[in-house]
Amino acid sequence: VARTPLDPEEIRRQLSTLPGWELRDGRLRRAFEFRDFVEAFAFMTAVALRVQEMDHHPEWSNVYGTVRIELVTHDAGGVTDRDVELARRIEAIATRWPKA
Amino acid sequence: VARTPLDPEEIRRQLSTLPGWELRDGRLRRAFEFRDFVEAFAFMTAVALRVQEMDHHPEWSNVYGTVRIELVTHDAGGVTDRDVELARRIEAIATRWPKA
Amino acid sequence: VARTPLDPEEIRRQLSTLPGWELRDGRLRRAFEFRDFVEAFAFMTAVALRVQEMDHHPEWSNVYGTVRIELVTHDAGGVTDRDVELARRIEAIATRWPKA
Amino acid sequence: VARTPLDPEEIRRQLSTLPGWELRDGRLRRAFEFRDFVEAFAFMTAVALRVQEMDHHPEWSNVYGTVRIELVTHDAGGVTDRDVELARRIEAIATRWPKA
Repeated sequence: VARTPLDPEEIRRQLSTLPGWELRDGRLRRAFEFRDFVEAFAFMTAVALRVQEMDHHPEWSNVYGTVRIELVTHDAGGVTDRDVELARRIEAIATRWPKA
Repeated sequence: VARTPLDPEEIRRQLSTLPGWELRDGRLRRAFEFRDFVEAFAFMTAVALRVQEMDHHPEWSNVYGTVRIELVTHDAGGVTDRDVELARRIEAIATRWPKA
Repeated sequence: VARTPLDPEEIRRQLSTLPGWELRDGRLRRAFEFRDFVEAFAFMTAVALRVQEMDHHPEWSNVYGTVRIELVTHDAGGVTDRDVELARRIEAIATRWPKA
Repeated sequence: VARTPLDPEEIRRQLSTLPGWELRDGRLRRAFEFRDFVEAFAFMTAVALRVQEMDHHPEWSNVYGTVRIELVTHDAGGVTDRDVELARRIEAIATRWPKA
């Protein structure tokens, strides 16, 4: 099934229940701060398991306790419902994760 | 440096500040319960990073949300201060981890 | 959908194309040997990603470079096609993995 | 111990035995390509274990099968022997890893 990008209005509506996430340069973005590399990389492992489950992949980076995540659907040329769904699953992990 | 096993008295003293851990069949043991496989395996990843840091390896098993850990120093033929130290680092992770 | 256990004849047929795996005590089993803890735990991470993808979980254990995996479908009370499928995905990883 | 940056001559000498790595914008850099997300993230896990062992952290990013790694010692304001050592450990993993 071809995915179509969400329109800006719909993205704004979704972001209203995804605090911390923003739309910038056509991608959903959020940075997370953890206490150290161990807790950051364990968080990445939990996210990786959800990513594989959805077969939808982020662009993400890490340095020490910081993890930055960007979500976009390349095939669709924009942010789709899959990006929003992955953002929700990442939030569900982050909410329960040890705080910095 | 050759490690020597701790005597039973000393192990008991250490266990008094490691709630949940027990000495059984010559090993320190504890089972942990997490909500699901994702949180269990992310916990294992955090523990793996501490294990590698210490270069001291557990015998451990997992099924779904359960992780069982056994610690012993094979070279010394018993429980040593390294096992106690690894148990303390594992506890430091578990204390902060999402609860089942 | 309720899963039903495979009959012993069918399991034997499947095992003929899964070298290294055996049926023992009602479970599919295989042990893998890697060079060290790093390569063993990275293998476990790859397997964990496939496990999550299938939502079908092994009973598995590790010590240093050794990983032991047991597969059974508890709900069905025996080995099902899901266990065979997970064994095949694990083999696909192991075939490409760095050898001990 | 305060680390001091390596001089450009020394970095060039080290890079001659680290094929694929380059010095750009004051950092050691290399991109790795793997077959899929599973093999890329398992590689990252192996690297994470070496990182924790050295207590020296990369800036790294991933998308699907691509992993980009940048190494610099912030405290020293440049590339030090620690970055070269971490690059060597990463190469030792990559050499043995499943190819794309």
